[in-house]
Amino acid sequence: MVNGLHTPATESGRRIVISVDAMGGDRGPAAVVAGLALSVAAHADVDFILHGKEAELSRLLAKETGLAGRVTLRHADRIVSMQDKPSQVMRNGDGTSMWSCIESVKQGEAKVAVSCGNTGALMAISMIRLRRLPGINRPAIASLWPSRNAVGFNVMLDMGADVKAEAGDLLQFAMMGASYARNGLGLTRPRVGLLNVGTEEHKGRAELKEAHELLGAAAESGSFDFIGFVEGSDIPSDRVDVIVTDGFTGNVALKTGEGTAKLISDFLREEFNASIFSRLAALFALGTLRRLQRRMDPRRANGGVFLGLNGTVVKSHGSADATGVAAAIGLARQLAAADFQDRLAARVASAARAGQDDATDKAPSDAASGSGGGTTE
Amino acid sequence: MVNGLHTPATESGRRIVISVDAMGGDRGPAAVVAGLALSVAAHADVDFILHGKEAELSRLLAKETGLAGRVTLRHADRIVSMQDKPSQVMRNGDGTSMWSCIESVKQGEAKVAVSCGNTGALMAISMIRLRRLPGINRPAIASLWPSRNAVGFNVMLDMGADVKAEAGDLLQFAMMGASYARNGLGLTRPRVGLLNVGTEEHKGRAELKEAHELLGAAAESGSFDFIGFVEGSDIPSDRVDVIVTDGFTGNVALKTGEGTAKLISDFLREEFNASIFSRLAALFALGTLRRLQRRMDPRRANGGVFLGLNGTVVKSHGSADATGVAAAIGLARQLAAADFQDRLAARVASAARAGQDDATDKAPSDAASGSGGGTTE
Repeated sequence: MVNGLHTPATESGRRIVISVDAMGGDRGPAAVVAGLALSVAAHADVDFILHGKEAELSRLLAKETGLAGRVTLRHADRIVSMQDKPSQVMRNGDGTSMWSCIESVKQGEAKVAVSCGNTGALMAISMIRLRRLPGINRPAIASLWPSRNAVGFNVMLDMGADVKAEAGDLLQFAMMGASYARNGLGLTRPRVGLLNVGTEEHKGRAELKEAHELLGAAAESGSFDFIGFVEGSDIPSDRVDVIVTDGFTGNVALKTGEGTAKLISDFLREEFNASIFSRLAALFALGTLRRLQRRMDPRRANGGVFLGLNGTVVKSHGSADATGVAAAIGLARQLAAADFQDRLAARVASAARAGQDDATDKAPSDAASGSGGGTTE
Repeated sequence: MVNGLHTPATESGRRIVISVDAMGGDRGPAAVVAGLALSVAAHADVDFILHGKEAELSRLLAKETGLAGRVTLRHADRIVSMQDKPSQVMRNGDGTSMWSCIESVKQGEAKVAVSCGNTGALMAISMIRLRRLPGINRPAIASLWPSRNAVGFNVMLDMGADVKAEAGDLLQFAMMGASYARNGLGLTRPRVGLLNVGTEEHKGRAELKEAHELLGAAAESGSFDFIGFVEGSDIPSDRVDVIVTDGFTGNVALKTGEGTAKLISDFLREEFNASIFSRLAALFALGTLRRLQRRMDPRRANGGVFLGLNGTVVKSHGSADATGVAAAIGLARQLAAADFQDRLAARVASAARAGQDDATDKAPSDAASGSGGGTTE
C-alpha cells in the first residue's frame, strides 16, 4: 500500500520475487537497501534478488535484521554510470549490476526488475535482453502524474523511451497505457486522451490527426474511452486517466511540471523565511504545508514502467531515497501481483489480431486459475 | 513599470500609440477598457487606437475620466470568436476588430498591436497583413516565464505559432529571442539554451543536433551566449535567459507549467480550508501567501509577442482581466519605447547577411537620432 495505489488481492502464500539493481543510483546502494527494508515491513509476500558488489551489499544487509532471509545476493562487479552512453552499455554491459538485474527477469527468477540507474542504458539493456513484445514497434515509459482524480494520479506515456512516435505507435501507447491504468490504478474503463496544442480536431501535427482516427476506432476493442485531444493543462485534471504522447514531448512535459513544482515550493519556502512574522506563520501552518508536500511528493509516484517488452521493468528516479525506492518496489510488487505482464501481453496480442475476436487483458493462465479477483482486466 | 520589466528611457515628449482590439477576449470589452484606464495611470506617454463596436465602447469610455483625450475609437462591426478557424478568418476577417487592430500597425498609425482574442486567428491576420520579415521562414510567439533570474523572468519561444520547426527556424528563434531579451528584459548578453530531453550532445532529435551546431556558430555574431541543451526542469532556472524550442513542445510546456501551478494552488487552498485550525493558520499566513501569489501571478507576465513580422503584435491571455490587459499594454509600450521592431529587423537582416559584417540590433534611425540611452542593443 506504499504510495496509495490500488493493491489487488493475491493468492495466499504466493511469493513475489523482485529483481533489484543495488548500484547506479545517485545515493548509492545504502538508499536501495534502506528502501528494501521499508518494503519488507509493508509487504510480507515479497522477496528480492539484489544485484551489485557483494562485499559492500553484505555489510549493508547485515545491519537490516528485517531483511534476513528475504534477499538473495547476486554479485556483479561493474556499475553503469549516469554518464555511460546507451549504445556502449548495449555492447559492453554484460557484468554490470543493471544487466544482471534484467537477466533475472529474462530467466524467470523474478517477475519485475527495479533500477535507479541511467534510464537510457536501462532501456537499452531491457530491449536487447527482454526483446519487444510481438507486435510492438516502440516500447514506452509510463509514469504516474499527481492529479485531481480520485486515485490521485494519471498515467502518462511515453516519457522518453524514444524521441518520436508515429500514429501507430501512439495507438499502441494508448492500449498499453489503458492496460496499465486498469492493473496499476484499478480503473475499469480508463479515459484516454491524446496530447496536442488544442482540443479542436483540426489542430496539431499530421501524425496526431491520424492517431486521433486510430484511437477512436480502437477504443471499443481496447476497453477504454477515447476523449480526443487534451492539452498540457489537462495533464493533472480529472477529465482524463491516460495521456498519450511521444517520448520527446512527454519528457519535456514531465520535467517542466517537476521544475514548476520545485520553483513554487522554493518560492513558498523563501516567503515563509522572509520575516520573523512569516516564520511564525509558518509554524502555525506547518501541518497544512506538510499535508500539501505529501500530496505533491514526487517520491509517492516514483517509478516509470517500461511497457512493450517481454518483462516488466520499473525505473526509479536516480535521486530516490529509501522512501522513493520503497515506492518503486511497491509499484513493482503490485504489477507482479496483478499478473500485469501476462495481461499486457494478451492485450497487445489481441490488438495485433486487429479486433477480430473479443479482446481482454486476461492472460490465459490467469483465466484458467480462476484468480484475478479484485482486479479489473 | 507595470509587471516589473525593464523600462528604457524615452525621449521626452514622444507619444507612443498602441492599437488595441477591444473585442474577442473572454471577459469582453469592459475588461479591456478597464485595462486601458490602469495603463494611462501608469504611463503618461501612451495613447490608444481602440477597435470594436463604437456604441458599446463609447459607453464604457464615458465612465473612465482618465481616458479622456487618450483614446481614438475605430468602429468594427464584426468580432473574431475563440471558435473561428484561422483559415476562415484569413479569408473573411476584413471588418473584424482584430483585423482593424492589425491594420493600424500596418498603416503606421500605431507602433504595436494588442489583442486578447483567438491566437491562431491573430497570427493568421498578422501574417497576411504584416508579412514576414525578409529572411524569416517561421514567425514565433515568445512568452515570459517566471524564473529564478534577477529580472524574475525567462523568455521562451516558440509557444505555438507553428507546430514544427527545422534547425534553421530554431536558429532564427534564438536570434529573435535574444533580441527580445535585450530589449524586453534589459539583458546585455542573453544566455540561450535549446530545449531537449537531456543535456548531452548526442541526445534528441536530428534537427536539434543540427540546431546545436548552428547556434554555437551564430552566438558571437548574434551577441548571445549559447549554453547548449537545457531540459524542461531548467525552464524556470537562473542558468538560462532564452529557451528555444518548436511551437508544439513550447505550447505543451507552457500549458503543463500553468496546469501544475494551478494544481498546487488548488491543493494549497484545499489544505488551508481543511479544518478550523488550518483556516486559522491561513489567516496568519495570509501576507506570505499573497506575496507568493504575486510572484507566481501569470497576469504579471501576460503577453505573448509575435516575432518575425513587419510589426510587433502582443497577444494577451484570452481570460485577462484589467490587470492582465494592463500588463500586456505595459509590455507593448516598453517594446515600442525601445524601438524593438527596428532593432529586431536590423538584427534579422544582419543575420541574413550571414555575419559578413559586425551585426548589432541598432536600427539605422536609432543610431542617427543618437537616442537609445539605457537600452542595450
